[in-house]
Amino acid sequence: MMRERTFIEHLLASQPPSEKAVELDVGDDMAMLRVAEGRVLAAIDAVVEGRHVRPGTDPFAIGRKALLRNLSDVAAMAARPLACLASATLPADWSETFAERLLAGIRDAAARYRCPLVGGDTSVHAQPDAPLTVSVAILAVPALAGGRVVGRRGAKVGDVVAVTGTLGGSLDPDGGGRHLDFEPRIETAIELATRLGTDLHAMIDLSDGLGVDARHLVEMAEMAESVAIEIEAARLPCTPGVDWRRAVADGEDFELLFTCAAVPPPSIAGVPVTSIGRVVEANSGPTVGLRVGDDLLDISTRGFEHGAGEGGDPPESRSETESESRA
Amino acid sequence: MMRERTFIEHLLASQPPSEKAVELDVGDDMAMLRVAEGRVLAAIDAVVEGRHVRPGTDPFAIGRKALLRNLSDVAAMAARPLACLASATLPADWSETFAERLLAGIRDAAARYRCPLVGGDTSVHAQPDAPLTVSVAILAVPALAGGRVVGRRGAKVGDVVAVTGTLGGSLDPDGGGRHLDFEPRIETAIELATRLGTDLHAMIDLSDGLGVDARHLVEMAEMAESVAIEIEAARLPCTPGVDWRRAVADGEDFELLFTCAAVPPPSIAGVPVTSIGRVVEANSGPTVGLRVGDDLLDISTRGFEHGAGEGGDPPESRSETESESRA
Repeated sequence: MMRERTFIEHLLASQPPSEKAVELDVGDDMAMLRVAEGRVLAAIDAVVEGRHVRPGTDPFAIGRKALLRNLSDVAAMAARPLACLASATLPADWSETFAERLLAGIRDAAARYRCPLVGGDTSVHAQPDAPLTVSVAILAVPALAGGRVVGRRGAKVGDVVAVTGTLGGSLDPDGGGRHLDFEPRIETAIELATRLGTDLHAMIDLSDGLGVDARHLVEMAEMAESVAIEIEAARLPCTPGVDWRRAVADGEDFELLFTCAAVPPPSIAGVPVTSIGRVVEANSGPTVGLRVGDDLLDISTRGFEHGAGEGGDPPESRSETESESRA
Repeated sequence: MMRERTFIEHLLASQPPSEKAVELDVGDDMAMLRVAEGRVLAAIDAVVEGRHVRPGTDPFAIGRKALLRNLSDVAAMAARPLACLASATLPADWSETFAERLLAGIRDAAARYRCPLVGGDTSVHAQPDAPLTVSVAILAVPALAGGRVVGRRGAKVGDVVAVTGTLGGSLDPDGGGRHLDFEPRIETAIELATRLGTDLHAMIDLSDGLGVDARHLVEMAEMAESVAIEIEAARLPCTPGVDWRRAVADGEDFELLFTCAAVPPPSIAGVPVTSIGRVVEANSGPTVGLRVGDDLLDISTRGFEHGAGEGGDPPESRSETESESRA
C-alpha cells in the first residue's frame, strides 16, 4: 500500500484548476481566497483520540490542541487568526463534563489567541468505543504590509535554513508534554517576516518532524528538482535532555522552519532563532540531508508518525497507516 | 442526561462576546466575518458513518453528502459558495480505492456547485473498526445586493411560513435515498431573496426535520418569547408515497424553510414553493404546532434523529444520544 501521506498528496495534487478567487490552495499551510478587496486564509486540521493523543487524554487538552495546531498553521503563513469553527464527534458514552471540557479547551486557546469560535457541529458516534474526533477549521487574514503572506514555495539555493525555539521531546513518556500545550508562533512569525521582508522566502510549521517538513519546502520550491536542504546535526537547537535523533524525529514541535536570503537575528520577540543549514543544489544526495560528522543521512522521510503509543516504541499499526496529510 | 443538541446549544450560547470582525456567529446556518471591505461566511458540518449514513455506504456518496450538507447551509443564507476544506479520518483498514472514491465524491459536488476544495487534512484511525468521519468546512460570500444575507433571526408575527420542494421520504428503506444526493437550493434561495427583498425575513435549511428547524426560527426571532409557528398538516407538500407524519419527522430534506411578509410565488427557478403556515403570537400553545383537523400537535421537538438504522425503527441508542447540533 502506498503510504497514506504520499497517496493523499497525490490525489489532492490531481485536482482540477481552482476558481479565480483561489490564490493558494492545496499544498500550503493554509489556502488563501480573495474576498472583495481583501483576502482570507483557511485551513482545517483534526485531532483523533488514539491517533494524535493517547486514549483517555483530558478533553480540555484535546480541544485546546485541536485549535493550537491550526493556529500554528496561521503562524506558518505569518498571518493573524480571524475565527474558528469546530466539528466534534463525541464517543457514544459522552458526558456533559466531557463535552464541557472539550469546548472549554477550544475556548481557552480561542481566547488566548483572539480567534473566536464562531460555529460548530457536534454529533455522537453510533458505534460504542469509537474515539473522539475534533476537526477545527480556522480562518485568518494577512498580517503583513500589502497583504503579503509567507508560503512554502520560495526556497532558493543559497538560503539559510533556520528554526525557532528548540526541537524534540514534545511527547513526554507519561503522555503529556508540549504537544498538548504549545505556543503557536504567531507574533514571532509576523515580526520575523516584517524584519526580513522579502528575504524571508519560505516557511512551514514543524508538525511532522524536521526531515519531512523540510522536504515539503523542497517539494514546493519553484525549482523543486534542483534544490535540496542540508542540515547540520551539531547546530540543531535540541530541547534539554534530547539528542539530535529525537530533535529530527519526534515531531509536533510546532516551531517555525524557514529559509531566507539573509542571516536571521538570533532571537525574535524573545524566541530563539537558530540557523541549522542551507538550501543547496540538488545532486545525487538526499532531498533533505542531515550532516553528522562526515556522514550525510537522508532524513527526508524521517519524521514523527502520529500514533497511539506516543513516547514509546512505535506500535505496529504505524508502519502501514502512518501519519496524516495536510493540504 | 440533557439531550445532546440542547446541551451543546446551551454551551455554545454561553460563549464570550466575539471579536469585532464577527457579524454573525453561533446560532445561524453560517457565521459571517468582515474581511477588509468584504464579508465571508463560514460553516462546518460532519458526516459520520453509522450516524449520518449506514455503515458500508459507498464513500463516494459519503464525500458528496459531506459537501452537499454544507452547500445547503450556504443556500439557507442566500449566499454563494466560495471554497471548501475537508478533514477525513479514515478507517484503519482504508484502501486507496476507498480514499479515491471519498475524494471523488467531494469533488463531484465541488465541481457541480463551483466550490473548489482548497485544503484538507487526513488521518487514519488507530482503533480498528472506528468509523469514517468526514468534516467539511465551507466558505461563502454574500450573493445579494449590498452584501445582504438571510439569517434565521427575522421571523415576525403575521409572516407566511413556506418551504421549497417536497418533504419526507429522504431515507429510503434500502439505505440509499435523497439524503445522499440532493440539490442544495442555492440558486432558488438567491432568486427568492432577490424577488422578495426585505419581505423575506428568516430562512433555514431543513436538515433535522420540519418541527425542529421551525423551532430554531422561533428561538432566533427577535421576540422569541412572543412568537410561535403554526403549520397546517393539509398544506404540507409531501413527497409522493409519504404522509404528513413522515413529512414532519423524516428530516434531511435539505429544502428551504422560510418566513416572509408577502405571499411567496408558487415556484422559483423551477422549484415549487408552498405556504404551509404562519408565524403567530405565542400563547399557551406549542412553539411549533401542527394543525391536523381540530388538533394542534406539538412538533417542536419532533424531527429526524440521525442514527444508524435510517429508514427503519429508531434504534435504542437514539433515545439518549440523539442527533447532532449545528451552530
